[in-house]
Amino acid sequence: MSKEFLLTAAWLFPAWDTEPLREGALLIQGTQIVEIGPAGELKSKYPFVPTEDLGQALIFPGLVNAHTHASMTIFRGLADDLPLMTWLQEYIFPVESHLKAEWVYWGAKLAVAEMLRSGVTCFCDMYLFEPWVIRVVEETGVRAALGEGLFDFPSPGYGPLEAGLALTEDLLKGYEKHPRINIIVCPHAVYTCSPETLKKVWEIAERHDALVHIHLSETKEEVKQCLERYGRRPVAHLRELGLLNENLHVAHAVELTEEEIELLAERKVSVAHCPESNLKLGSGVARVPEMVAAGVRVTLGTDGPASNNDLDLLSEMRTAALIQKGLRRDPTVLPAQEVFRMATEEGAKALGFPRCGRLEPGFEADLAVLDLLRPDLTPIHDPLSLLVYSARAGAVSGVMVAGRWLLREGQILTFDEAETRERVLAVAREIQDLVKSRS
Amino acid sequence: MSKEFLLTAAWLFPAWDTEPLREGALLIQGTQIVEIGPAGELKSKYPFVPTEDLGQALIFPGLVNAHTHASMTIFRGLADDLPLMTWLQEYIFPVESHLKAEWVYWGAKLAVAEMLRSGVTCFCDMYLFEPWVIRVVEETGVRAALGEGLFDFPSPGYGPLEAGLALTEDLLKGYEKHPRINIIVCPHAVYTCSPETLKKVWEIAERHDALVHIHLSETKEEVKQCLERYGRRPVAHLRELGLLNENLHVAHAVELTEEEIELLAERKVSVAHCPESNLKLGSGVARVPEMVAAGVRVTLGTDGPASNNDLDLLSEMRTAALIQKGLRRDPTVLPAQEVFRMATEEGAKALGFPRCGRLEPGFEADLAVLDLLRPDLTPIHDPLSLLVYSARAGAVSGVMVAGRWLLREGQILTFDEAETRERVLAVAREIQDLVKSRS
Repeated sequence: MSKEFLLTAAWLFPAWDTEPLREGALLIQGTQIVEIGPAGELKSKYPFVPTEDLGQALIFPGLVNAHTHASMTIFRGLADDLPLMTWLQEYIFPVESHLKAEWVYWGAKLAVAEMLRSGVTCFCDMYLFEPWVIRVVEETGVRAALGEGLFDFPSPGYGPLEAGLALTEDLLKGYEKHPRINIIVCPHAVYTCSPETLKKVWEIAERHDALVHIHLSETKEEVKQCLERYGRRPVAHLRELGLLNENLHVAHAVELTEEEIELLAERKVSVAHCPESNLKLGSGVARVPEMVAAGVRVTLGTDGPASNNDLDLLSEMRTAALIQKGLRRDPTVLPAQEVFRMATEEGAKALGFPRCGRLEPGFEADLAVLDLLRPDLTPIHDPLSLLVYSARAGAVSGVMVAGRWLLREGQILTFDEAETRERVLAVAREIQDLVKSRS
Repeated sequence: MSKEFLLTAAWLFPAWDTEPLREGALLIQGTQIVEIGPAGELKSKYPFVPTEDLGQALIFPGLVNAHTHASMTIFRGLADDLPLMTWLQEYIFPVESHLKAEWVYWGAKLAVAEMLRSGVTCFCDMYLFEPWVIRVVEETGVRAALGEGLFDFPSPGYGPLEAGLALTEDLLKGYEKHPRINIIVCPHAVYTCSPETLKKVWEIAERHDALVHIHLSETKEEVKQCLERYGRRPVAHLRELGLLNENLHVAHAVELTEEEIELLAERKVSVAHCPESNLKLGSGVARVPEMVAAGVRVTLGTDGPASNNDLDLLSEMRTAALIQKGLRRDPTVLPAQEVFRMATEEGAKALGFPRCGRLEPGFEADLAVLDLLRPDLTPIHDPLSLLVYSARAGAVSGVMVAGRWLLREGQILTFDEAETRERVLAVAREIQDLVKSRS
């Protein structure tokens, strides 16, 4: 069955480089968009195709959260305003050592609810017990690039590294043809993975033509440690190991030199910019305008909700734009169009979904619906401005992935959001008991 | 009639320097809070007082938006990503020259809807046709400090300066005893008001013991112009004119030297920090940690929604905290507690409402209700963290000012929000026609 229908709304914003359409329509067949145009025109052309009119709403390409650890919703607000090492060593790591599949499953499910409500249709996830995140993605209908976090020391998820490598390879084989799931290979970072580990990881990725996703140059401390240990900065370190190519997607990239930016552009490496997490953890501000100018593919991510503290990619777009303008004392830097590109088409390409991120014929019907009947989205001088500078999680009333509604009229259709919330509250009580028993 | 009732919820956060209370209760009589404590205790103590239970919600002190131009909602998204002078001279000023009372009225009413939905119970407004903003405040039941913007050149609001001064004095007399309205004297800035104008303004303020509110040291350009014109920086300029005292509330204060920070602290001047507007217009980042350390009363404002582009004080708290951490590469700077203090008690004191900003006996019952049944506010490891780092406009389901519900269970009770939205859409069409006729 290939269901066909017209979707219309007061406004349609097809892609970052197009004009918004008043009273626009999409013709959707099965999972794909087959035509786009003015609602009146498409309705006359296809009089027998059923129409769903969304009214005073704006249809836009689903956002792509290009870096997160979704299940960390369970740690949201557990500890803030702390030095990174105190936060990790006294809160996150001790609790993560007790991590279990159930926690990861419910945490990821809550994260999907939250992401849908901020218009996200696709995300990139690196965490522990990743098969349980994969299960959530299968059940909820969202799109994702997913990989088990790999590092030298034993993992509560899979045990010794070799088991993690084997798990990754199994997942790569098992999900090879999944239409919405792209398995990726996720070495955690250069400070947690030895050169030997990185080489093994790379071999697996090469064998399966898979993407590699790693945290890179997030902090000054990481660069310093890398220099001390290997005599070169993180980017050069990956280059030496042969990892710097178009299959590499790095998160953060806060600490980059001019030469490193040039190199990332030349090697077609993509970067997940995570401005809110970088600010909150005191890491700094990535040089996004320079990366964009050099031709680096820059995408946008929230990072985990424990260091953000949300998965709201709408507000992430806003922060990304505002911070560059403020720091450079130039309001023209990183305009709305550019950050919207990062959060849609660039993210989709980086995660291996080249037919997502735009609403045009031949692309997947991955879209979100912004409810315009809100005081904070009134008036409508410029729909793109509303999306980037005024919208926030909660204003999204609908999300479709591959032609299927996951969120519609404010209700999640593919899973029980209230149950998910209750389960996470129960997990949080377990976590609080653990924290108390340690103090 | 002095209505008495108990208000209970799963969580109660009384003030920035207190612990959150699980299952807390407030006893409210008339406009005031008379007792606070555990719900069980207060219900046993007052068995005949009716109880309203808010369920899975967090009651917190209503936020104070310490600097805005509320009616500028009508310009939201009209032009972004432009140099400040282009934005002002090609968009805002030409359209503002056609400003009329009706636009200001509906723009302000929409702004109140938006602010209520982000938990704001009190705001500070400087604009044109301010009597129409005052009328909105009277009708909607919110609390505010309000003043007509004054400058040397003729105003579309009142005509010549003398008329503006007379209007201000009339308002000061007319609203002397209003319980929710505090009329303030609003010279626009040192670059739009001559020393003579500032002196006249000051005489009026002194005569009525009124607050003076002015934009100060917002940009490098302002400081440069002030130096060129008067041979001194803006702060020194106001000191020379005798304006630097505890009745002065300045907006922005981005460009301050160490000495100026000391001077503002010593003279008890309060500052409205507007981080998002300062970032978006490329003005820079105010030195908030230094101001707080020196003892300056720092409050938080959104600035007008045309340069923000919202009136969401929840997200403003978050931006205020995140940007300082990121720029100083120190996650411990400006913790949640400190920004919550700025957005509540400090704002209330600065605007002349010393019995607001805390939920404790003897204080006004100005409060807001955060709906915790949301994925992005789950789990509840720390209610203050949720308020500052995770909550955003739209998550507020209730707002009470002076013991009266203005927003309850997501519905605005004191005015027609849908009509307001329609009226602003009509105003926006007029504005678009004006912009088109000029281009």
